[in-house]
Amino acid sequence: MICSIEESPLYPIINPKSIAFFGASNTFLRMGSMMLSSVQALGYGGTIYPVHQKEESVRGHKAYASVMDLPEVPDLAIIVLPTAVVCKTLEDCGKKGIRHAIVVSGGFREAGPEGAEAQKGLEAVALKYGIRFLGPNCLGVANPYLRLNPTTITSEGPPGFVGLASQSGSFITQMFDYLHRHGMGFSAAVSVGNEANIDIVDCLEYLGACTHTKVITLYIEGITRGRKFIETAKAITPHKPIVALYVGGSEAGRHAGRSHTGSMSGPNEIYDGVFRQCGIIRAQTLAELFDYALALGTLPKPGGNRVIIQTHSGGPGATAADACGRAGLALPPFSAETVEKLRPMIPKTASTANPLDLTYSLNSAQNFFDIPDVLLQEKNADMLLAYFLSPGIFMDRILKEMGVPAESIQAERDKMIMEHADAFFSLTKRHPDKPIVGFTYRSLQEKMVRNLLDRGIPIYQDPERAARAMAAVLQYYRLRDGIEKSEITNNLK
Amino acid sequence: MICSIEESPLYPIINPKSIAFFGASNTFLRMGSMMLSSVQALGYGGTIYPVHQKEESVRGHKAYASVMDLPEVPDLAIIVLPTAVVCKTLEDCGKKGIRHAIVVSGGFREAGPEGAEAQKGLEAVALKYGIRFLGPNCLGVANPYLRLNPTTITSEGPPGFVGLASQSGSFITQMFDYLHRHGMGFSAAVSVGNEANIDIVDCLEYLGACTHTKVITLYIEGITRGRKFIETAKAITPHKPIVALYVGGSEAGRHAGRSHTGSMSGPNEIYDGVFRQCGIIRAQTLAELFDYALALGTLPKPGGNRVIIQTHSGGPGATAADACGRAGLALPPFSAETVEKLRPMIPKTASTANPLDLTYSLNSAQNFFDIPDVLLQEKNADMLLAYFLSPGIFMDRILKEMGVPAESIQAERDKMIMEHADAFFSLTKRHPDKPIVGFTYRSLQEKMVRNLLDRGIPIYQDPERAARAMAAVLQYYRLRDGIEKSEITNNLK
Repeated sequence: MICSIEESPLYPIINPKSIAFFGASNTFLRMGSMMLSSVQALGYGGTIYPVHQKEESVRGHKAYASVMDLPEVPDLAIIVLPTAVVCKTLEDCGKKGIRHAIVVSGGFREAGPEGAEAQKGLEAVALKYGIRFLGPNCLGVANPYLRLNPTTITSEGPPGFVGLASQSGSFITQMFDYLHRHGMGFSAAVSVGNEANIDIVDCLEYLGACTHTKVITLYIEGITRGRKFIETAKAITPHKPIVALYVGGSEAGRHAGRSHTGSMSGPNEIYDGVFRQCGIIRAQTLAELFDYALALGTLPKPGGNRVIIQTHSGGPGATAADACGRAGLALPPFSAETVEKLRPMIPKTASTANPLDLTYSLNSAQNFFDIPDVLLQEKNADMLLAYFLSPGIFMDRILKEMGVPAESIQAERDKMIMEHADAFFSLTKRHPDKPIVGFTYRSLQEKMVRNLLDRGIPIYQDPERAARAMAAVLQYYRLRDGIEKSEITNNLK
Repeated sequence: MICSIEESPLYPIINPKSIAFFGASNTFLRMGSMMLSSVQALGYGGTIYPVHQKEESVRGHKAYASVMDLPEVPDLAIIVLPTAVVCKTLEDCGKKGIRHAIVVSGGFREAGPEGAEAQKGLEAVALKYGIRFLGPNCLGVANPYLRLNPTTITSEGPPGFVGLASQSGSFITQMFDYLHRHGMGFSAAVSVGNEANIDIVDCLEYLGACTHTKVITLYIEGITRGRKFIETAKAITPHKPIVALYVGGSEAGRHAGRSHTGSMSGPNEIYDGVFRQCGIIRAQTLAELFDYALALGTLPKPGGNRVIIQTHSGGPGATAADACGRAGLALPPFSAETVEKLRPMIPKTASTANPLDLTYSLNSAQNFFDIPDVLLQEKNADMLLAYFLSPGIFMDRILKEMGVPAESIQAERDKMIMEHADAFFSLTKRHPDKPIVGFTYRSLQEKMVRNLLDRGIPIYQDPERAARAMAAVLQYYRLRDGIEKSEITNNLK
């Protein structure tokens, strides 16, 4: 394990002060040009040195005919060139004194025996010059905190707490928007490609030490350094959760993974065992990977598996209860104290069972503070799962009926929603030891839910996803607290 | 079974020409007022007769002090009054000659022994006058084709093909927006409440005969007329799919369901058996309920379980392959003919394995027609699953780089996207026997996906959901074609 993040070979790759960029030109429809354009779009503040044989400037940056001409030794080289010239280019970088590179270009091991030979050439050059490099056949890195995104798709949304190491490049460049819509953002994301020099274990070490990263997510098609992976993961999970999606759960997935990066994948059950042994939470789908990350990155450790469901409709309450049951969560009955406190606040027709169904209520203020506040005081429960039906759809109608002019309705409604959101959010401060999770069947982009998501309350589009994420949090702490300091076994490799 | 839809007791309830409305007033913050407001918002063209003791008019409609004063006998009475006066009101309706009603009011069987007595009173009145009624303790119906929505939340989106009979009222009134966002709409939706007179079996009969309804969805907490349910469902599934969500899959869900409508629920396994026997597809979550409905309502019968995945990124392809494998779908290799046809269209570095990974391509036109057209000709495959990354995010950048003025970019991009969408959509006409399904990790509301959704191509936000929906379609036809005309057994009640 590394002692500090600066020791990681990925540190200069993820946090470069200057970059030599090979393969960008003034023709936009080239992959290198699009990648440089992404860097520019996010507003990276470091120095960019395009290397181009003919152009005097590339996309507004002074260009250099050769890497040898650069006025300084940049921290990083990004290489997006035809396969045939990559090795020579890496060697030139070595001669210049560059010690870190991202090789985006494909055509190496994943392309067959000839490509595998070419990859060995890259490895030899790296060894000769002491270069550490990511790839080949990768999309590089994204570090939103440094406003650095040299991937093919422009970044959307603010930085966040999700670290990703991925054997698929698309999942680092195509997930900006997905994460943002679901209330997250990357702390740092790394596409490892063929892992010729830097591999997913190095990423684990980096993300384990990265203070922006609260949860590490892994997209895995196959692990080569099995023993080291286990050792590293075991050192990280006691203080930071790791969630892994292994695409080898089915014969079809295993086959697809193999043809994608050329890495070897193994039986599903072995990975299950390895993950469990390391305290890694396994996700079965990409949606789960980030659903779990959201909960693990935002929620406190739950005291147990007992959930109270707050709803104002029977059906959503029953489906949530069903989902909790399937996820291994329990629904405790309320204590007499809780029932007594609830009585004055709920309609006479509402029962005081769990799920607490508030039934139809037009005075929603209590639903967002007083009632959940009582539920969070319940000593027999560990977590709260609340159903959100957008209050906006009612407020708009009410305000209109009250004669509020059409042009003022939105502002009035937003003010009321913000008051509710503030009240609900304050519950996380009053009850810091009890996880609070939401679910809705409406869009996550509606004002109140969006606001709460942005403030770190995980809200899911489905009670099933919410319940499974809550169960994943429980599983993490159970594995963490139960992890034995047993001999490291070596099932992988 | 009914012979024509007009024979259904639900026909005048779902298709009334005139409605007597009890419980709406000029005070908006009443449930009855909101429900009448929803009717007005959608623009129902029939006649509304508010019955109100004091007001001369209610929400712009001439009001009547007593139902006896109405100038005609309306098709339907909607009653949203305090429990204590509901029975008397229903009796008045009977005297007036009204033969169909929706009793929205709660406080009956679900509220305990006293309420159960009151419900018996309602039943007796109905018997006396030959009234058929929905409820009590329900939210009524929605018939978007008639622009009729007397539920608490205003309707969003156009009418569609999904029929819903629900033991939860919230799922008919809170799902308009959900269905629209996911590419669907209700044909008709019924909240059955306590099922004192009309039950879920009556709804099945109605929806089975309803020509707008292509798929029937059921939200079930417990079935009372088990034998009749089986008989009816068995008569429907040979010509129309039924998908059911039974919330009793876990102890928690069962408990929640029981307290919600007071109906009895039974062991999960019994329902599994009943559904299978009837040819009903079972969904485990609400998301699955409508995911399956979307696929069943839009796709042709697949010839088998063999899927080709088209992607331009490895990770999404591998996760889709994994999901297909888990869902029991097979990924056949391509025939030599297909490989030959693909060669000139795909990059040299792309492999011709399934999933077909087109890799990074800036000329996307072929991806939306020529390539999937070849894949759909593959004789070894039955279905196509295509990954959609919004072309808009690239086009905007390309157009900007080409110097297209900022104010023209959106129009240009939308034009290109529509061309792609038209081309892709035309594949459904060229290959009418092969289901075409999509998945994306971006918002379903982005232009191209939204357009294809609106034209009936099912696109899911996750390959897992897509694969499971495809498997549900297969399961439907397998059950349908394998259903034996065996003796009706009676596992339920």
